[in-house]
Amino acid sequence: MVIVMKQNAPTEVIEKIQKKMMSLGCEVHKVQGKDHCILGLVGDTRKINPSQIEANDYVEKLLIVQHPFKLAGRAFHPEDTIIDVDGVKIGGGNTCVIAGPCSVESEEQLMTIAKAVKSSGAHMLRGGAYKPRTSPYSFQGMEEEGLKLLKKAKEVTGLPIVTEIMDEVNFDVVEEYADILQIGARNMQNFSLLKRAGKSNRPILLKRGLCATIEELLMSAEYIMSKGNNNVILCERGIRTFETYTRNTLDISAVPAIKELSHLPILIDPSHAAGRWSMIEPLSKAAVACGADALMIEVHHQPELAVSDGAQSLKPEKFEHLMREIEKIANAL
Amino acid sequence: MVIVMKQNAPTEVIEKIQKKMMSLGCEVHKVQGKDHCILGLVGDTRKINPSQIEANDYVEKLLIVQHPFKLAGRAFHPEDTIIDVDGVKIGGGNTCVIAGPCSVESEEQLMTIAKAVKSSGAHMLRGGAYKPRTSPYSFQGMEEEGLKLLKKAKEVTGLPIVTEIMDEVNFDVVEEYADILQIGARNMQNFSLLKRAGKSNRPILLKRGLCATIEELLMSAEYIMSKGNNNVILCERGIRTFETYTRNTLDISAVPAIKELSHLPILIDPSHAAGRWSMIEPLSKAAVACGADALMIEVHHQPELAVSDGAQSLKPEKFEHLMREIEKIANAL
Amino acid sequence: MVIVMKQNAPTEVIEKIQKKMMSLGCEVHKVQGKDHCILGLVGDTRKINPSQIEANDYVEKLLIVQHPFKLAGRAFHPEDTIIDVDGVKIGGGNTCVIAGPCSVESEEQLMTIAKAVKSSGAHMLRGGAYKPRTSPYSFQGMEEEGLKLLKKAKEVTGLPIVTEIMDEVNFDVVEEYADILQIGARNMQNFSLLKRAGKSNRPILLKRGLCATIEELLMSAEYIMSKGNNNVILCERGIRTFETYTRNTLDISAVPAIKELSHLPILIDPSHAAGRWSMIEPLSKAAVACGADALMIEVHHQPELAVSDGAQSLKPEKFEHLMREIEKIANAL
Amino acid sequence: MVIVMKQNAPTEVIEKIQKKMMSLGCEVHKVQGKDHCILGLVGDTRKINPSQIEANDYVEKLLIVQHPFKLAGRAFHPEDTIIDVDGVKIGGGNTCVIAGPCSVESEEQLMTIAKAVKSSGAHMLRGGAYKPRTSPYSFQGMEEEGLKLLKKAKEVTGLPIVTEIMDEVNFDVVEEYADILQIGARNMQNFSLLKRAGKSNRPILLKRGLCATIEELLMSAEYIMSKGNNNVILCERGIRTFETYTRNTLDISAVPAIKELSHLPILIDPSHAAGRWSMIEPLSKAAVACGADALMIEVHHQPELAVSDGAQSLKPEKFEHLMREIEKIANAL
Repeated sequence: MVIVMKQNAPTEVIEKIQKKMMSLGCEVHKVQGKDHCILGLVGDTRKINPSQIEANDYVEKLLIVQHPFKLAGRAFHPEDTIIDVDGVKIGGGNTCVIAGPCSVESEEQLMTIAKAVKSSGAHMLRGGAYKPRTSPYSFQGMEEEGLKLLKKAKEVTGLPIVTEIMDEVNFDVVEEYADILQIGARNMQNFSLLKRAGKSNRPILLKRGLCATIEELLMSAEYIMSKGNNNVILCERGIRTFETYTRNTLDISAVPAIKELSHLPILIDPSHAAGRWSMIEPLSKAAVACGADALMIEVHHQPELAVSDGAQSLKPEKFEHLMREIEKIANAL
Repeated sequence: MVIVMKQNAPTEVIEKIQKKMMSLGCEVHKVQGKDHCILGLVGDTRKINPSQIEANDYVEKLLIVQHPFKLAGRAFHPEDTIIDVDGVKIGGGNTCVIAGPCSVESEEQLMTIAKAVKSSGAHMLRGGAYKPRTSPYSFQGMEEEGLKLLKKAKEVTGLPIVTEIMDEVNFDVVEEYADILQIGARNMQNFSLLKRAGKSNRPILLKRGLCATIEELLMSAEYIMSKGNNNVILCERGIRTFETYTRNTLDISAVPAIKELSHLPILIDPSHAAGRWSMIEPLSKAAVACGADALMIEVHHQPELAVSDGAQSLKPEKFEHLMREIEKIANAL
Repeated sequence: MVIVMKQNAPTEVIEKIQKKMMSLGCEVHKVQGKDHCILGLVGDTRKINPSQIEANDYVEKLLIVQHPFKLAGRAFHPEDTIIDVDGVKIGGGNTCVIAGPCSVESEEQLMTIAKAVKSSGAHMLRGGAYKPRTSPYSFQGMEEEGLKLLKKAKEVTGLPIVTEIMDEVNFDVVEEYADILQIGARNMQNFSLLKRAGKSNRPILLKRGLCATIEELLMSAEYIMSKGNNNVILCERGIRTFETYTRNTLDISAVPAIKELSHLPILIDPSHAAGRWSMIEPLSKAAVACGADALMIEVHHQPELAVSDGAQSLKPEKFEHLMREIEKIANAL
Repeated sequence: MVIVMKQNAPTEVIEKIQKKMMSLGCEVHKVQGKDHCILGLVGDTRKINPSQIEANDYVEKLLIVQHPFKLAGRAFHPEDTIIDVDGVKIGGGNTCVIAGPCSVESEEQLMTIAKAVKSSGAHMLRGGAYKPRTSPYSFQGMEEEGLKLLKKAKEVTGLPIVTEIMDEVNFDVVEEYADILQIGARNMQNFSLLKRAGKSNRPILLKRGLCATIEELLMSAEYIMSKGNNNVILCERGIRTFETYTRNTLDISAVPAIKELSHLPILIDPSHAAGRWSMIEPLSKAAVACGADALMIEVHHQPELAVSDGAQSLKPEKFEHLMREIEKIANAL
């Protein structure tokens, strides 16, 4: 950590800060420039509360050197984390494809789609039973009934289940049915939920918030890991920008960025990023080409009847085509 | 709602959509242009699932005419909502000032600040007992102990209490102690929490998410109201943009925008918007001048010792100055 | 400037960087932490090319301490710059109001509006003769004919003229007619134009780009000043964000931010920020309340016939009302 | 175009608008809903000035159906545009790679890099002679001297030259030396420059502005094309968002989006997008996989001595590796 003092900072203020930092166990190196005095801090500066320092009238700014995350960071855990669910691996160079409907709507709907994605080569099945909807008047999910259908679909297809958990109240029941628990973008900083997920024995698929930085995403993973659950899969699903042609802007750079910063696997969700089915295939190809560990794709056999996300759902035949295309890239690299 | 068909849309597809929309109770007016066919829908189009229509290969785009909110909208409730808490009014032309520390830290700290803000003319006391922190290693709040101190501070100063509720699990206990329950920016679309808040008998202070549109903020208010609680105060606290000089960008236009769209009171939180104490006063003056119903301001007698948000906390004497300045504006208008 | 080395940086690389920095006239202080080695640089680091340092494989990041601007900065010029145009002052605590149509359309149109804004108390007249339009098929301005009408309007009303200059080719002619030359948001980083403006003897009204940081705005002012023209007025006119209810998001915090960083006057353009006439008055009040030196407001007597920006133009009677309202605030403060 | 009237719009106002629209040659279809009256317009609505309609007090909003671009749009020109420069093709399924230094610095520097990128298989040479720099104190380019060196490099390597043109004043000289003229992101809406480019006989490489929408990029292409130059290459080079780990956010979705909307070729510039050399290869692979027509990559043999953009320049051996990797993907697809 580096503290930049204002030009007119009195010596006694600087000394007071130096002493305080030393009392927190840091070494302090003072560098006196012509205009500015700079304090370079050495040691574990994570204990320091930056806002307390910035509160000082004579502090101009604070520069953070260390990353605020530790368990999620690659520095202390250089090798890739590989998460194994019933033999399906996420991380470490595989390309895992999770596919299925946005919402579980009925047994017939789920089974039709589950069998279709299985036959195209998907590795896991997704489907929402508890649905976070912008409007209170929209379909809110089949809840436990939906979870039971997912379990059935797993029995038939053998595909492990990924489904969303929205709150602590329903955590136990979702945990019972699902193989991977998804925390949605809008809950990425629902810290109570993250703490509960940290005590789960299921891997957590953590979606990046619409305006969360990569560092904040890693800090939310840190929350989960700090409670004991190290099986976190990070998901980039589009961020919010000024561009309106796509529903969100897929931040494809998040893939190499997270590979640099963290050992956790990174999954791309092109469906929510683009919001348009016509773009899912090219974006999936981009994701695989730049090293994403997994893809999550919404598939529906009747998108125009889907209760949610029809516009971004692929029909099974288009999903089949996508699978063949990404295979070519995976094989080439 | 207006449906724009693609240039090559076959007549039978257009007719199928027309029939479907009519079956949902809408009148459909077809306008055939040279290039595009447009379907104008009349009636309560809120029942229509836009994504199902967009899923159609021949639909180019969909234009929404009606606002998706109803209870929160001014159209069906033209007069301003005024929320009364122990005689303190928010809405309807008053300027209510809520002030206090970011976190409750100790009895001495809270009492000192509570008395100071009271003597400067604040109308309510804020203070966090459950704290949403980016890092799992940061102070997470005094929890129920903090709530008890807030209650004590109310007994001494008479100021009603505003404090944050982070989850359903602790809802009952916070509801018991607080006069207004705050839902934080990061929980604005925690729909489970919003539903619980809708069953509360306390007014809810709903903070806008860092990248939430004004429409989404109103939809979250709609969630609360649809469960029966009409006492919602909207809060603009800065949105996330590319600008880094300020912590967030205060969207001051949200004040007149919400006045146009909704009858609910709008509060400005300049502390979180700017993230710098030096800007709190000018931003507070701007807020009052353009018609904000309330302000929420972080005050701490020792910002350099504050466990959170020290950099954006005003010292009591600066808060006193701010109060005198905004009074001048309020009186002039 | 602070250079943070990667954990595994070899000693000889660090020493090489140290030597290079010293050869550029900087003092270098090395601070060796447990994980990271940090180099603190003292002296005029503006000569250093940050990208050269970042190009080094062993450099993790670079932290800039000094502001990159000098002439535009308050550090070297503490007192406010006041720009005087024919006795009208911008800066130093006055509230100067510039009003007029978006485009000059005809003599009758311009004279009608010029007289109206004069009678309501505006201090200068705006009007575009060269128009930057998103579409090549839109009206591109009356060009020199428009400038002549502006001159006439000045003769009649006595109001100094503010008009836009779009390129170097027409610089001389615009300079001849106008009292203040405006550089538009889309040209804020048209460096060739900035250099030419730096050689002008007219004050320059420099609009912030739609996604320019405050620092970049000040760097563009620095371009102009570095060529000899110190009379620069900065203009905040809304930045681009994800919010779509308003055309742009007025960054009101730019007012106190620029007051901290620079001595140059700051003007607010609520018309382009909001894009809706109904919001101009509240935003103007906010601007005056938080210390803006000037306002620029689009006024048209027949907005529904205006060739550009009709939606955000105030009718004269609404402008009159606005002037009376901001007077109240100016008087109160 | 669809005009949505406010709930209380008087019949005579609606009729007046209907008449006006009809006088502009449009058919108007009135759809009367319970709350809203909607006017559906048929015909070439590009002549209508949307702002004039929005200026009406009783108009709630306007929905645009037609794209505002015509020459740049795929609707009127379904087949891909292929641009041929000395036999090198951009568009139509090829992957053209343009590589070279950010700035031309010296004959030795340019020749070294030109030969290196040629031998790795690059198809064109880039290099800046006129440099748009954020700071007036930074190196501004070798100007015509640099152009002469580029010509020499072309003679030696046979690679066509891509270089930036910053203003009309130097247009003729740059046009003489370069094979493709680049218009930089900060000049994307420098309309005077676009008009001049429209009269050039050279292809124009048009970079997307940092906060320009895809539609605005296409409108800037339309400016060039409307003056007669149809050879426009669009370039996505990262947009500005809240994320700070990368210099900008590469909007990879722009590739499929532009393929849907336009017939013009689309080039990806991963160097400026990421701002970090370590990310150039993965992003290049993503670009090729999702269908980009071309790549532009900064290469320098001594990035730590580069006068500009060292941090994002690849060393020749890393560029060689990148070329082999993208070949694998191109071959696989």
